[in-house]
Amino acid sequence: MAADARQLDRLFKVIAARKGADAASSYTAKLFSKGVPACAQKLGEEAVETVIAAIAGDRQGALSESADLLYHWLVLIAALDLDPADVYAELERREGRSGLDEKAARTEN
Amino acid sequence: MAADARQLDRLFKVIAARKGADAASSYTAKLFSKGVPACAQKLGEEAVETVIAAIAGDRQGALSESADLLYHWLVLIAALDLDPADVYAELERREGRSGLDEKAARTEN
Amino acid sequence: MAADARQLDRLFKVIAARKGADAASSYTAKLFSKGVPACAQKLGEEAVETVIAAIAGDRQGALSESADLLYHWLVLIAALDLDPADVYAELERREGRSGLDEKAARTEN
Amino acid sequence: MAADARQLDRLFKVIAARKGADAASSYTAKLFSKGVPACAQKLGEEAVETVIAAIAGDRQGALSESADLLYHWLVLIAALDLDPADVYAELERREGRSGLDEKAARTEN
Repeated sequence: MAADARQLDRLFKVIAARKGADAASSYTAKLFSKGVPACAQKLGEEAVETVIAAIAGDRQGALSESADLLYHWLVLIAALDLDPADVYAELERREGRSGLDEKAARTEN
Repeated sequence: MAADARQLDRLFKVIAARKGADAASSYTAKLFSKGVPACAQKLGEEAVETVIAAIAGDRQGALSESADLLYHWLVLIAALDLDPADVYAELERREGRSGLDEKAARTEN
Repeated sequence: MAADARQLDRLFKVIAARKGADAASSYTAKLFSKGVPACAQKLGEEAVETVIAAIAGDRQGALSESADLLYHWLVLIAALDLDPADVYAELERREGRSGLDEKAARTEN
Repeated sequence: MAADARQLDRLFKVIAARKGADAASSYTAKLFSKGVPACAQKLGEEAVETVIAAIAGDRQGALSESADLLYHWLVLIAALDLDPADVYAELERREGRSGLDEKAARTEN
């Protein structure tokens, strides 16, 4: 069966379960122990690496860096005690106003 | 029904369908018409905004910027003719080596 | 006479003099009026654009984006009530430990 | 004597002299040996760290990260075989059109 985005939901559960665990027990627990700024910094770094791979035309690198980007995004969401489902809901809500008025809605931002 | 990550799969189909459309027809089509560097730049900018909201403790902003980040990540993936399923598969593959050896595997990188 | 880095000192004086000015009076005054997060965001965006130009091998773009980067860095420094001279002094201090021990000192960080 | 921006010119000479040196001889030579993408990535990372320190209100951190940012910017400029004097000249040129028309000129970009 091909992987689909539900992998992100499974991964988020694994990540969230590591909050509060001994920092020595996993890379994820160590990141949490460093706090939100360290998690945010990793997100920023992985975004830069994704951008670089994309511009360089390194498609395999873009896939690999994207995996790092999504992983660290989920860690940041968990560090902030947020739920990724709220982000997916926001995307769904925006899609609802797509079609004729999508462009107008975005232009306003 | 609560939104789950499958929203990303639905959204990717909408985004990918706009590749090659008239740039005037939607925000997404306009982004594609500008090419990979412009799409990558938007990803970088949204990552910076997500980082800033997170550090500032603006949880609502972090949700909203995260939605922008994921949206523009999907646009970049489509611009590169990549499939997000390959990224989810990569995350699944990495998870397979979790547990005892996750830390070691990540430390090697 | 060729431009040298003292241009940054001249420019910083111009920028700092615009703090507290009417936001409508200049681009710089408008940035200050939006606060530190907006200034930081611009720095992040210009860094992304510099990175993209560099990777794309666009040397003229790298020069132009670098000018934007330095300009917005000076704005952020002023927004934080800092003095760029303290940054240059820090660079001078680090250079003092260069030579044999530079590598060791950096590796420690 | 207080440090001024000429420190950047001195530092650039030191950095440029390390191009082509044995990668093991210094941190700078090692960065050059990795190529433009690695130098650009470091610039991006240091920008993210500067942004984070600024948003967090960590003024000492903003100074220290700014030193890292300027250092890695000079390395990237050297890696691209560019001259920072051309960037300072561009800033001087832009300043020339400041005053009444500065805002208009920037708005056009």
